[in-house]
Amino acid sequence: MSGCPYFEKKHLLYKNKPPKTEEDEDDSQAGVNKASRGGIIYGDYLQLDKILTAQVLQSELKANKIHDEHLFIVTHQAYELWFKQILFELDSVRDIFISGHVRDERNMLKVNTRIHRVVMIFRLLVDQFAVLETMTALDFFDFREYLSPASGFQSLQFRLLENKIGVPDNLRVPYNRRHYRDNFKGHDSEMLLSTEQEPTLLKLVEEWLERTPGLEVDGFNFWQRLEINIFDGLNQEKEKIEKMPDSEEKEELMAEMVKQRELFTSLFDEKRHDHLVSKGERRLSYKALQGALMIYFYREEPRFQVPFQLLTSLMDIDTLMTKWRYNHVCMVHRMIGSKAGTGGSSGYQYLRSTVSDRYKVFVDLFNLATFLVPRHWVPKLNPNIHTFLYTAECCDSSYCSSDDSD
Amino acid sequence: MSGCPYFEKKHLLYKNKPPKTEEDEDDSQAGVNKASRGGIIYGDYLQLDKILTAQVLQSELKANKIHDEHLFIVTHQAYELWFKQILFELDSVRDIFISGHVRDERNMLKVNTRIHRVVMIFRLLVDQFAVLETMTALDFFDFREYLSPASGFQSLQFRLLENKIGVPDNLRVPYNRRHYRDNFKGHDSEMLLSTEQEPTLLKLVEEWLERTPGLEVDGFNFWQRLEINIFDGLNQEKEKIEKMPDSEEKEELMAEMVKQRELFTSLFDEKRHDHLVSKGERRLSYKALQGALMIYFYREEPRFQVPFQLLTSLMDIDTLMTKWRYNHVCMVHRMIGSKAGTGGSSGYQYLRSTVSDRYKVFVDLFNLATFLVPRHWVPKLNPNIHTFLYTAECCDSSYCSSDDSD
Amino acid sequence: MSGCPYFEKKHLLYKNKPPKTEEDEDDSQAGVNKASRGGIIYGDYLQLDKILTAQVLQSELKANKIHDEHLFIVTHQAYELWFKQILFELDSVRDIFISGHVRDERNMLKVNTRIHRVVMIFRLLVDQFAVLETMTALDFFDFREYLSPASGFQSLQFRLLENKIGVPDNLRVPYNRRHYRDNFKGHDSEMLLSTEQEPTLLKLVEEWLERTPGLEVDGFNFWQRLEINIFDGLNQEKEKIEKMPDSEEKEELMAEMVKQRELFTSLFDEKRHDHLVSKGERRLSYKALQGALMIYFYREEPRFQVPFQLLTSLMDIDTLMTKWRYNHVCMVHRMIGSKAGTGGSSGYQYLRSTVSDRYKVFVDLFNLATFLVPRHWVPKLNPNIHTFLYTAECCDSSYCSSDDSD
Amino acid sequence: MSGCPYFEKKHLLYKNKPPKTEEDEDDSQAGVNKASRGGIIYGDYLQLDKILTAQVLQSELKANKIHDEHLFIVTHQAYELWFKQILFELDSVRDIFISGHVRDERNMLKVNTRIHRVVMIFRLLVDQFAVLETMTALDFFDFREYLSPASGFQSLQFRLLENKIGVPDNLRVPYNRRHYRDNFKGHDSEMLLSTEQEPTLLKLVEEWLERTPGLEVDGFNFWQRLEINIFDGLNQEKEKIEKMPDSEEKEELMAEMVKQRELFTSLFDEKRHDHLVSKGERRLSYKALQGALMIYFYREEPRFQVPFQLLTSLMDIDTLMTKWRYNHVCMVHRMIGSKAGTGGSSGYQYLRSTVSDRYKVFVDLFNLATFLVPRHWVPKLNPNIHTFLYTAECCDSSYCSSDDSD
Repeated sequence: MSGCPYFEKKHLLYKNKPPKTEEDEDDSQAGVNKASRGGIIYGDYLQLDKILTAQVLQSELKANKIHDEHLFIVTHQAYELWFKQILFELDSVRDIFISGHVRDERNMLKVNTRIHRVVMIFRLLVDQFAVLETMTALDFFDFREYLSPASGFQSLQFRLLENKIGVPDNLRVPYNRRHYRDNFKGHDSEMLLSTEQEPTLLKLVEEWLERTPGLEVDGFNFWQRLEINIFDGLNQEKEKIEKMPDSEEKEELMAEMVKQRELFTSLFDEKRHDHLVSKGERRLSYKALQGALMIYFYREEPRFQVPFQLLTSLMDIDTLMTKWRYNHVCMVHRMIGSKAGTGGSSGYQYLRSTVSDRYKVFVDLFNLATFLVPRHWVPKLNPNIHTFLYTAECCDSSYCSSDDSD
Repeated sequence: MSGCPYFEKKHLLYKNKPPKTEEDEDDSQAGVNKASRGGIIYGDYLQLDKILTAQVLQSELKANKIHDEHLFIVTHQAYELWFKQILFELDSVRDIFISGHVRDERNMLKVNTRIHRVVMIFRLLVDQFAVLETMTALDFFDFREYLSPASGFQSLQFRLLENKIGVPDNLRVPYNRRHYRDNFKGHDSEMLLSTEQEPTLLKLVEEWLERTPGLEVDGFNFWQRLEINIFDGLNQEKEKIEKMPDSEEKEELMAEMVKQRELFTSLFDEKRHDHLVSKGERRLSYKALQGALMIYFYREEPRFQVPFQLLTSLMDIDTLMTKWRYNHVCMVHRMIGSKAGTGGSSGYQYLRSTVSDRYKVFVDLFNLATFLVPRHWVPKLNPNIHTFLYTAECCDSSYCSSDDSD
Repeated sequence: MSGCPYFEKKHLLYKNKPPKTEEDEDDSQAGVNKASRGGIIYGDYLQLDKILTAQVLQSELKANKIHDEHLFIVTHQAYELWFKQILFELDSVRDIFISGHVRDERNMLKVNTRIHRVVMIFRLLVDQFAVLETMTALDFFDFREYLSPASGFQSLQFRLLENKIGVPDNLRVPYNRRHYRDNFKGHDSEMLLSTEQEPTLLKLVEEWLERTPGLEVDGFNFWQRLEINIFDGLNQEKEKIEKMPDSEEKEELMAEMVKQRELFTSLFDEKRHDHLVSKGERRLSYKALQGALMIYFYREEPRFQVPFQLLTSLMDIDTLMTKWRYNHVCMVHRMIGSKAGTGGSSGYQYLRSTVSDRYKVFVDLFNLATFLVPRHWVPKLNPNIHTFLYTAECCDSSYCSSDDSD
Repeated sequence: MSGCPYFEKKHLLYKNKPPKTEEDEDDSQAGVNKASRGGIIYGDYLQLDKILTAQVLQSELKANKIHDEHLFIVTHQAYELWFKQILFELDSVRDIFISGHVRDERNMLKVNTRIHRVVMIFRLLVDQFAVLETMTALDFFDFREYLSPASGFQSLQFRLLENKIGVPDNLRVPYNRRHYRDNFKGHDSEMLLSTEQEPTLLKLVEEWLERTPGLEVDGFNFWQRLEINIFDGLNQEKEKIEKMPDSEEKEELMAEMVKQRELFTSLFDEKRHDHLVSKGERRLSYKALQGALMIYFYREEPRFQVPFQLLTSLMDIDTLMTKWRYNHVCMVHRMIGSKAGTGGSSGYQYLRSTVSDRYKVFVDLFNLATFLVPRHWVPKLNPNIHTFLYTAECCDSSYCSSDDSD
């Protein structure tokens, strides 16, 4: 970046200790010498020789250079750069979960910060369409023939990203009756397949939610207490209503009451849950759902403050990804029209169909809003459970003694 | 971009005609065959093998991989990608001006659209800091030693960009008493020197403003008419005030009147203008300033609508560049502190000093706001000048017959 | 605004002349006196006594003050303030069209600037959701019962805005089987009805497009020339393909050719157009569509540069309104869930259905992208039509002599 | 908001319990009845009769209606609405601190969320200038005379906001040699004076930082341990350098070493700190500074994760407020020019001078970046202190038993 002074900071005095090796001393010395003799300069550091020579206009190759193709290329490259960064953050977060390091709650800051960073990047990517929209349909028409058959469907990174977050294969909208993986060959196709088989962020968050302290049946037993409280509450409300003189209002309230009872009956019905999961309408396990609701209700407990933020950020990612999809749709409409009336399912219509709750990975976190109850129905934490929550944070000794890994 | 259908459009039927050459027929045929046999795919088109392999963490090379360095690299690469796009747009606009094609007013749409695109890119770049700000000073500290002596001062593209727009060498703030060009060697240094000598966007806009129709002394003679009207107007105001009974208010008004007269006397004093230019407080020639003010006052004339938008966009660029600088300063403050109290002019303080009107290239366009007058003081366009303005738009035959160049 | 100095500017010397009246002289004098004696101060000017006392929390009235209700109120008030501004701009633009002032092309700058301003406001409103999203579903749950039955469906201004732009009554999605106007009573309901009957922005733009110079059958006759050129072009392409040796590729190209021919046959078929209009798939008249396409193809002609920008801004408004709707949907999903599985069409599902091309007023401008052709198929403008286009800009004398109206 | 369904939700069944009073039962019943009979509708809830009738154009009163004045009014009203929301959040956060409720760590989520909300609002306000910038200097000129002497300097809320955050009176830049409070009279002036005397957010955060666990001299004694570690570390580095053969590099490193030693000597010198405070270069007490640095270094400890986020958000507020000021300056430059050359300190120049670190309230949090050290210099937390940090979170019984207030 221009004139960025922190960039040239040379705290040669401060060495962050790399892991000890035999050659440690020498290496470090070498480092000092190299740095002082010149070290690395900006352009080399950023490999600008690669980055800034990667804009080859197909229209120019075909001896018909079209100015706006340059913008088209740079915009897509910027998207891919940021996709790489998102994948980097996602992988690091998944690693923390997979390795079990998240059991040391100190790692929650990292998880939270990195997921929040993904949110901020997606926010930028949503805005970035405004730049490409300075190109009109007419400008695009001048070079779009040269791109054939290159297609955004071929963006490996975006598909990896979807898979790693947890868009399930069976909920994807097919395009032209082809499986999305058919757009890729060889190594790329294998990478995609393996991300379908690796634990997704959704799966890892699910396992973490299942461990939420307080769910233990032989402990605080949150789920049973909640069920009792809710139905007690509903019964009391019902009694109140029954005492009212007959009126239209009373009938309405009773009808509403019946609905609420059905709603909550469904919440505590594990079979119904499993049925919804089988239809793709819910994604989290029954236990994980309980954990999420517990975090919602006790979000102000110190132990749950950061987990609550994490759940919020996960919804942000979902929301921003669908906004990204929607902005994409809007731009495509502008660039090539909807082809309404010419027959055949168009690319526009395909894209439109992906702006759907089917593609919302953490849809359950949104839908929990349906099951909120008044604060005084939420089971009280007694001093014991308070203490439990706090001291539980002290990780067991094996973690505490281990170094920060990353 | 993911699943972008317009990307794979293959209007093989429509060939935008490239300039005729002998091999034309064959080439075009070859093109069709190649495309149908496969053509180019997304990853190759965008050269993702270069773009996505250019992230090498210095900390990892030093066996102490720091997670956040990846973000640092990607962010700077994204900045450089967009700088390249800005330079591409700037060069194309400068070419249109240099070649004289702007005399064919049909090219004003291109000029305007491209300058507006630069505005939109800068808007994105200003927002982009929000992503890098997810890295804290502490995260940065962990790897900043490895960057030495790489420095944002070494961003060639940003310096080229400043030069091509028109930041003058003599108004630059020196850093550590060194000339900015000393950060560059060989070919890079020569490129910078040559951009200092080529016509800048400022210079080209200046020449274009000097040609504003209506300035001709033997024609509409805008400047003289304006001077007459203004001083007539001031005199009438003065008379009104003089007729008022003595009061504090009258005195205030008279004092204000004196100031206004001085202000406008200075406007019509070419020597004073040249003096301000020599001090760097004004940048445009006296004639160009007149042209700009003329466009301001008659902005609703069809002939001047697009030129007026252009002047507005040029101010946008200036504003956004200083906002970019200021956001940069804010981030640097956060990352390395101001080092207040440790002595020595810090990088932070240097950067802060560049957030200055000295770096506003089109500062005159802002300052013209000082010289606005009521609408009824603006010289009336008579039907003749109206006609003149419209027919003047018809480019002379040599341009009209020429092809669209780009 | 804090410390805003331009706010207190007192150019008492410069009087913008109000329309002459008998008391003119006196009034103006009075103005000066009043201003000097104090004039108006910031808080009174902005009527902050009204603006800043309008936040009454229902939860507080019910003796259970919930902190986040304040944000809820302020956010909605800010939306309504901006809706008012949008209506103000829309009305002024519609007035210019209705009064015929747009025939004086000098008014195009106003039209364009104001429509662009609406774009900028919508852009802000889309971003504004980020503030309300700092409230979680749980915070909202604490006070949402108190709001009953207040509903956003009752926002009069938003409905007016939709009507004035041109969302047609018959394409609206009904909510709970009720007509949207049933949410309003008395004067409000009448206002809505009258906006359904007044000329919409869509209608006014349509009439303006129908007047596009060059469409005259006894003049340049754009439409017929275009039809001839397109089918000539298609025939030439066909001949080329027929000469190719038999191959899979040849077959593909022939199939594509057939599709293209059908596509363009449909374009020049007025009956088909009227059929699409009757189904709501097209909105503009056949002639207006021709005008729009003409502006697209000749957008670089000085005469058409600003009209082309206008068409682009109209698409921006459509796009941003659907983005606004979509962001709204996303927030509602977060606040109350989708209620999937509880039966009954939910508010969420209703809102989702409004994020539809049915609500895109200027959908035809997007879909024209389907009918683009290579530049060399576009009918050439001969010097005559060039001249025609330019001189036509000179408004007729009756307008030229008239004052700037606003 | 248009068609917002969550708005009309009527969970009449769920009553959030208001504090018990004698009339409790009746009130609640009344509430139900009222709601069912109609309750409140959207327009009444938002008091739109006040909000939407508060736009009175001065230019219209003077019989010279200028279109753009409407935008000017609405924009400023939107700013004031949001200022009110910011004040509401600030006051609630200050109350939590003042009441001591923050000692119950459960309240940290509220504090953090509300401070983050202020950040999001400021982000919107920074962007909001883009809307007002659709008005040009020329449009503004047409009505600015009518505003006299209304001035943004008279925005009471903005001054309150500055005071409550902690902009100190003695660091304010005087405008036209007048004290800022002279712009206000009567009740407003008194309100300002009292906010100067009440505890500012800065002061409250300072007190909270001083209580950071681990600072106790007879406990973990962070500060002394840190001092020892740092100087040990510096000594070791020095020895390494001394062993190097003489060279230019060695000299550089020694010089750098001397600087670092001075820097850290200053850090541990309380007198020097107090001196910097007296000059306004530091704002926090010596002990609070220690607490902040402790939170920085141990940010990953569960106990400190949310406090660390809070410190980050406080810097965000500072940054966004200066960006807001800077954007304001840019707009003023555009609207009225800088008046360079006419003499007298202009409003533009005054505003420019407020974009200064003097107005950064939490400047110390930025400048701590100067005092970062390698991770292995940071004093290790032993298992005891770990346990201390976790159990300390369990608030004492008096708080635990108390209800959630707010």
